[in-house]
Amino acid sequence: MGAGQEELPGYTGLALELLKKAGARVGDRVRVVRRGAVFEGILMPRYAAFGRPIIVVKLDNGYNVGIRVDESTVVEVVKPREKVLEEAAAGAPAVLPLLEEQPPPTPKPKVMILGTGGTIASKIEYETGAVRPALTAEEIVEAVPEVGFVAEIESRVLFNILSENMRVEHWERIVEEVARAIAEGYQGVVVAHGTDTMAYTAAALAFALPGLPVPVALVGAQRSSDRPSSDAAFNLLAAVLTAARAPFAEVVVVMHGETGDTYALAHRGTKVRKMHTSRRDAFQSVNARPLARIYPAEGRIEVVAKPLRRRGETPLRVENGFERRVALVKYFPGMEAEVIDFLVDRGYRGIVIEGTGLGHVGEWLIDSIKRAVDSGVAVVMTSQCLFGRVNMNVYTTGRKLLAAGVIPGEDMLPETAFVKLSWVLARTDDLREVRRLMLTNLAGEINPRHTVDLFPRWPH
Amino acid sequence: MGAGQEELPGYTGLALELLKKAGARVGDRVRVVRRGAVFEGILMPRYAAFGRPIIVVKLDNGYNVGIRVDESTVVEVVKPREKVLEEAAAGAPAVLPLLEEQPPPTPKPKVMILGTGGTIASKIEYETGAVRPALTAEEIVEAVPEVGFVAEIESRVLFNILSENMRVEHWERIVEEVARAIAEGYQGVVVAHGTDTMAYTAAALAFALPGLPVPVALVGAQRSSDRPSSDAAFNLLAAVLTAARAPFAEVVVVMHGETGDTYALAHRGTKVRKMHTSRRDAFQSVNARPLARIYPAEGRIEVVAKPLRRRGETPLRVENGFERRVALVKYFPGMEAEVIDFLVDRGYRGIVIEGTGLGHVGEWLIDSIKRAVDSGVAVVMTSQCLFGRVNMNVYTTGRKLLAAGVIPGEDMLPETAFVKLSWVLARTDDLREVRRLMLTNLAGEINPRHTVDLFPRWPH
Repeated sequence: MGAGQEELPGYTGLALELLKKAGARVGDRVRVVRRGAVFEGILMPRYAAFGRPIIVVKLDNGYNVGIRVDESTVVEVVKPREKVLEEAAAGAPAVLPLLEEQPPPTPKPKVMILGTGGTIASKIEYETGAVRPALTAEEIVEAVPEVGFVAEIESRVLFNILSENMRVEHWERIVEEVARAIAEGYQGVVVAHGTDTMAYTAAALAFALPGLPVPVALVGAQRSSDRPSSDAAFNLLAAVLTAARAPFAEVVVVMHGETGDTYALAHRGTKVRKMHTSRRDAFQSVNARPLARIYPAEGRIEVVAKPLRRRGETPLRVENGFERRVALVKYFPGMEAEVIDFLVDRGYRGIVIEGTGLGHVGEWLIDSIKRAVDSGVAVVMTSQCLFGRVNMNVYTTGRKLLAAGVIPGEDMLPETAFVKLSWVLARTDDLREVRRLMLTNLAGEINPRHTVDLFPRWPH
Repeated sequence: MGAGQEELPGYTGLALELLKKAGARVGDRVRVVRRGAVFEGILMPRYAAFGRPIIVVKLDNGYNVGIRVDESTVVEVVKPREKVLEEAAAGAPAVLPLLEEQPPPTPKPKVMILGTGGTIASKIEYETGAVRPALTAEEIVEAVPEVGFVAEIESRVLFNILSENMRVEHWERIVEEVARAIAEGYQGVVVAHGTDTMAYTAAALAFALPGLPVPVALVGAQRSSDRPSSDAAFNLLAAVLTAARAPFAEVVVVMHGETGDTYALAHRGTKVRKMHTSRRDAFQSVNARPLARIYPAEGRIEVVAKPLRRRGETPLRVENGFERRVALVKYFPGMEAEVIDFLVDRGYRGIVIEGTGLGHVGEWLIDSIKRAVDSGVAVVMTSQCLFGRVNMNVYTTGRKLLAAGVIPGEDMLPETAFVKLSWVLARTDDLREVRRLMLTNLAGEINPRHTVDLFPRWPH
């Protein structure tokens, strides 16, 4: 018994040899045993453009794994593909939507994946055991071969850091590389990023790319890929699909839309927030609707909100550079003025306050805030409520803060206002111009109209 | 034409005189014109125990107004009560549920209302025109006579401040007065409070009253009572009902449960957060379910989660006193170590960090954090995600922070962890004991088990 090359598209070298030896054909249910780890699922074709010895298997949970094989690896056929297809037709779990799909006709859109680090990159191989420090974006692609059906992929690793370690200089580097890829003709860019500060980076890209002809999709994973519940493959495929085919040209965060594997959401980069420490659907839009639902299995994009720009509408324009001396300060009962004074003394040029309610702080801070503004520091007010809009005309405290020169942050997320102020202060040091820019909707960060149904439905 | 005193229960003096002159009886639809302002609705009985000249009218929106009358006030009957009741029976809006209710048999539960300020106190009279600076809790009761059906009310005004101006000393004063009222035999306590920092104060009361025999309900208003959409009357009635009759003995926040006037929610004081700048249903439980639904119109309390203690189960125990030198610090990309160093230099004894994701900060802060801990400062980690639980064993950064001595804040809200640390540090300066207390569930602030359906449903 033996299978020819035509039954094993894409396979070469050791992987091809092992599969031939087992008599396996694409579509068969196979078991691969490698150093004690057992993988069982449907053998998939291999479209990735890299030559390492990898066998791709679609597990019963719907995820593809790329199993790195070596001389000791054993492959056996558990069930021939005729039997698998028969069972699938009879109603077995629909794990095979891509099996019969052929690589789409060339030319596929060209998508650049920029690797920056985080869970999505750190353990993307579905191997048990020791945590691997990091993989290149190339390796990501090898592990999720479906992305090769959607687009012609290239990748660059910019750096490899956990996203809590991202700083302004990293934002600037990512902006540069996104712009470079667009200038080189890529029809979409994916940025693989740790989830912790992904929303901050998304906002930074949105402000620094005021002209954008293609989509830029940031993507991460909440669960590393050594866990059965990993969202890495699903999210990456959704992000590549968005970059390759979305009709809008915006900076978005693409992550799981619900706990299942039905759809991902593309959130506007200036209106998104990580709202849960561990859930797959942790990323949610606040004070706005997500832009689109992405159905990776069907290759479908459902746009549900009005985009800022359509694909191809605006030529690339880059306004890179962010001010470092900007702070985000959350108010708490009894917070002392010394905290504001300290930032002013240390040369901070901007302070975003996360105040209470409609935009308040203890009245004993107002003098220090006025001194800060008088000395040229831009002070912006947002709300720790997160939902809703700052309105500083309702109560005495708000009016006093306005009189002291505080800029009301509209319905901006505190995190977005922080990134925006950092970007604005790198453009101007005229406080009137700072105020004008902060109050102008530049990248969808201000939603002028809220509908009642924007607020989530709470469990009770 | 004239009406006897028996048709106008509770009315005395000028109000009685005006009503008699108009031939009005309780239940009639009346129009009251006072200095150009016109109020039309059903004339209600007056059960409040205060003697000021007020006529109570139930407006068509279901709210009662207490109209202060003077010599120039004109009252006229628009429709006799027989006709009103006939129309109500025929399906007119059910604005009359309380009309036929008699004062319940004595003894009613005794409830103490403590006034501290905020919107609920500042403009509770339904008069148009100039904003009144503040009213006493007595005046609140006069304006919402239904509370008199539910309980025998007394009130004390502790102070009158906007809640953004609340400080530790105010928490301590409220604790004292709540304890005093309970010691005096009140069967429930209501604390009328501004909404901006109400959740912080609720947590403070929860920790400072480890033994509590009766419910303590904090209540506020998101819209002042000069607006038709005011929630002041509805919320106050729900809070009094909770204080008077709830079967649990916990510190709760009682506020609108949805945008309509169907029910209020009683949220556990350590798990609640103001999640919207202006909505009536801004207060929501995070990482927990609300304790109960309160239906003020029906006088019904529906307990939906397991309370910490039942009414009467635990004798009063007070542990008052909070440490002032505690800070809440929200991490942002690029935050410099100087911020931590500054707090340590200034003698802060505790720092709650609102980190990213599972509980992280930029790695360049770890040295400063370690120095802080080594010098005796308690450092607690929470997450700016708000939802979910800190888990610092998953990634390198978390493990390094744990090694530096950071206390993981479980699923506590950053605000609650801040209040708790302030309370704990007033009890001990032994960091091991601080750690033990922070990791112990003292007042429902840690929810050991989360179910999937705890996360809100987001609009998409």
